[in-house]
Amino acid sequence: MFFYQALQRNAAILPNTIGTSFGDREHTWREVENRVAKAANGLVNIGASKNTHIAILALNSDKYFECLNTIPWAGSVMVPLNIRWSVKENLYSLNDSECSILFFDDTFIETATELMEQCNNITHLIYIGENEAPAGSLSYEELIANNEPMKAVQCDYDDLVGIFYTGGTTGFPKGVMLSHKNLWTSSICLISAMEINKEGDRYLHAAPMFHLADIGIGYGTVISGLTQVFIPAFTPEAVIDTIQAKKVNYVLLVPTMVTLMLSAKSLESADLSSLQNIVYGASPMPEGILISAMEKMPSVEFIQAYGQSELSPLITILPAEYHVLEGEKSGKLRSAGRPGYCVSVEIRDNDGNVLPPGEVGEIAAYGPNVMLGYWKNEKQTQSTIIDGWVLTGDAGYMDEDGFLFLVDRVKDMIVTGGENVFSAEVENTLSLHPKILESIIIGIPSDEWGEAVHAIIRLNDNETLTETEIIEHCKANIANYKVPRSIEFRKEPFPMTGAGKYKKNELREPFWKDKSRAIN
Amino acid sequence: MFFYQALQRNAAILPNTIGTSFGDREHTWREVENRVAKAANGLVNIGASKNTHIAILALNSDKYFECLNTIPWAGSVMVPLNIRWSVKENLYSLNDSECSILFFDDTFIETATELMEQCNNITHLIYIGENEAPAGSLSYEELIANNEPMKAVQCDYDDLVGIFYTGGTTGFPKGVMLSHKNLWTSSICLISAMEINKEGDRYLHAAPMFHLADIGIGYGTVISGLTQVFIPAFTPEAVIDTIQAKKVNYVLLVPTMVTLMLSAKSLESADLSSLQNIVYGASPMPEGILISAMEKMPSVEFIQAYGQSELSPLITILPAEYHVLEGEKSGKLRSAGRPGYCVSVEIRDNDGNVLPPGEVGEIAAYGPNVMLGYWKNEKQTQSTIIDGWVLTGDAGYMDEDGFLFLVDRVKDMIVTGGENVFSAEVENTLSLHPKILESIIIGIPSDEWGEAVHAIIRLNDNETLTETEIIEHCKANIANYKVPRSIEFRKEPFPMTGAGKYKKNELREPFWKDKSRAIN
Repeated sequence: MFFYQALQRNAAILPNTIGTSFGDREHTWREVENRVAKAANGLVNIGASKNTHIAILALNSDKYFECLNTIPWAGSVMVPLNIRWSVKENLYSLNDSECSILFFDDTFIETATELMEQCNNITHLIYIGENEAPAGSLSYEELIANNEPMKAVQCDYDDLVGIFYTGGTTGFPKGVMLSHKNLWTSSICLISAMEINKEGDRYLHAAPMFHLADIGIGYGTVISGLTQVFIPAFTPEAVIDTIQAKKVNYVLLVPTMVTLMLSAKSLESADLSSLQNIVYGASPMPEGILISAMEKMPSVEFIQAYGQSELSPLITILPAEYHVLEGEKSGKLRSAGRPGYCVSVEIRDNDGNVLPPGEVGEIAAYGPNVMLGYWKNEKQTQSTIIDGWVLTGDAGYMDEDGFLFLVDRVKDMIVTGGENVFSAEVENTLSLHPKILESIIIGIPSDEWGEAVHAIIRLNDNETLTETEIIEHCKANIANYKVPRSIEFRKEPFPMTGAGKYKKNELREPFWKDKSRAIN
Repeated sequence: MFFYQALQRNAAILPNTIGTSFGDREHTWREVENRVAKAANGLVNIGASKNTHIAILALNSDKYFECLNTIPWAGSVMVPLNIRWSVKENLYSLNDSECSILFFDDTFIETATELMEQCNNITHLIYIGENEAPAGSLSYEELIANNEPMKAVQCDYDDLVGIFYTGGTTGFPKGVMLSHKNLWTSSICLISAMEINKEGDRYLHAAPMFHLADIGIGYGTVISGLTQVFIPAFTPEAVIDTIQAKKVNYVLLVPTMVTLMLSAKSLESADLSSLQNIVYGASPMPEGILISAMEKMPSVEFIQAYGQSELSPLITILPAEYHVLEGEKSGKLRSAGRPGYCVSVEIRDNDGNVLPPGEVGEIAAYGPNVMLGYWKNEKQTQSTIIDGWVLTGDAGYMDEDGFLFLVDRVKDMIVTGGENVFSAEVENTLSLHPKILESIIIGIPSDEWGEAVHAIIRLNDNETLTETEIIEHCKANIANYKVPRSIEFRKEPFPMTGAGKYKKNELREPFWKDKSRAIN
């Protein structure tokens, strides 16, 4: 399937159904298709073609959704930019991806101008905001008004449809190249397992639309004919209000959003009766938060999706029926679920051998959703895709029932005295201490053990805690070889990536300056 | 997705769940995979490779299912043969498809021997029956016992996985070539729209397994991890008994099977509480039968699928919620439903222009499920696939809500005095007369009108009816230009294809001997 075929199908069979709903503005599917077909023609008329890469830097909106369809309709390649990144980071990905056109909205007027000045490739800025187009940019609405609808450009299912930059916890962000087939197979399997398929139901884009988590589920809901509802950006209030006002049935949230929802005052009195599912994913969900969410929103079903950009992004799904604390299907809440319908998953040791259930190794995944490769990075592609399988960089194990359990990033595992220590497990243990705000566990060089477990700890305000107290807390909860051998306290926040992950490599670096880690 | 990847996934995540159930014999998914991996090695050891075509001629069974997986596992191409065809017809398709290996069961021992004698290509017969392998054939069970499991042969998603011979209402059967991608995309969309996705649920193969209707839905249920239940051949009793004994949740039936179910005595007292859905399709379902089935099986949901081999086979789906006689979603019961998630559908006039809702034309369909082409028949391929779209040969229209209504085969439409007459409509009208058993409407040459409407009628036993009475019945129900201009009575059954369709071309032939039809 071509990306835009889902839009075409909806325009053909649900022409008068609301396709997009943003604030007070609504468009039927026929209108959305018409706008997209005109905007695409506008793109072609300013020179866009098959090899044109087109970036989007904007908050969520119906126009963002139109851009995601317009770009492939014109045969071009979409490059959604991370709205949390600095100008420098986005400049890197704009240059790297060789984008010549940039869509932007009211939030990014200054940034867009700055990017245009600093990036030689960019020939056109297109404004998708709500006012007059700023000087130096084209108006998206005029592009639509001044062009006739064009037929979608024919392409091949394996053609590149988009480049998606990954957070890059290590070094420069990488451009993940995905095809029409990649995105479609991932999305159809997501909605197939989730039963998100009643046309006329409503999906809320609450997570940022540049992110493959929202693109994956969101595109799936387009395939199955759901009305697309948008809020510019996540706030607990906006989500709760919109669910009620627009009778939303499905929403994707990342774990931190769920956490914020739970502390929102309006949640208690909210009428969430329309909401069938909250899909969560993109980063690990602490079990306590999940249980609390299940308790506070008892009428809502929870579904977990685990994936990464390199898999478009589906790897595993934990269906709603496993979100229970009792009965036959309990005990899987900490699992990331089972492989999606199009995905094969293996757990491998360092030599590439497949490990049996229960043993921890690197998660490898395979299917029609495996990316085409990294943009202009053949070396990284070759070390990531081996015989068609993606090495995910995540460590985990499968249980006897085929459920995947994540334990750590492979690079964050610590090998100490021949034993594997998963930083996530030690961090979880530390998080149980009431005085500890957050902690990071890294491996540092040790002449005796190869690597030693090192903890960096931030305490809650006005709390004190000694090294010995922390070690005793750990000894009471985990095996001795996992207990930190050294501890350092910090006041300042930990360095984070744009996607909200800890930059452990930055914290590890000073310790390893003149040495080389076995895993890197 | 490769065809066998669904089996691999089930073996990996549901190893101890029952995969196949046939009579008293059950295999877990791990066992099924193991048997398939060994049998595939057996095939390779007798010379099977990527270009080897392997036929199956057998009733339904767990071993038939294993063959469907074993053949692509070995990298070879499956050719399931029509069990209703004569030796001559199957000989044609065996020769045409250049098969060198033939799987057969107890029902086809004689036929297999005959085919082996007459077909020079065949080098090996493999017996998948329940007894000792007959002389001159290899034993499938020995193939499994004597070979180690092999890894599945790597291939490309676009590689040919099977050749499926179509009924051929006109001339020789055609070999439809389908790829791994074709079958997977059709099947995932079928189960996605039907919500057939709870692993551990059970699907019953009651329709013949050589037919793409059962292969399409059946493969979908393998993708979603359902246990596969088999009966050798359809009888109403076998279906009703098996549903009860094995707690079957889903079954695919063709309309004639539904009709037979309704007259089965055991239906009234049957406990069908496990049965969630009857999927029906493969030929038009008379509305009266459908309503009667809905009344007699009120706890069961009905879903219609319309397709053809050239689309692997999905074109449209009529979901359960439209199987109602009252309310907002009523009025669609005579529709074939809306396009599947991967399918685009257009209605076209003779010049290829797209027609608006309500107008009748030829149904064209497009998607990743479009066949690779007809085997060794480039000419027919080129006249069937135009710019990637399949011309289905079916005439129909779409309503304003995107529901497709079939009216006739294009070739069976009659153009008389500039008006289009759909033979199916006239036949439906005749079927309402209590004295008429069945009827066929064809166009015959007319100097005055180009074509004239001609009826061939079989009356119920011991009934009489005059030409005038029939014409009056028609005039009371349909427009004058649709009323037959000539009528002929027959006692003997109408000529049928192996797939149970009328051979109208054979009935038309004597009238057109020295003339040429505009549509042909």
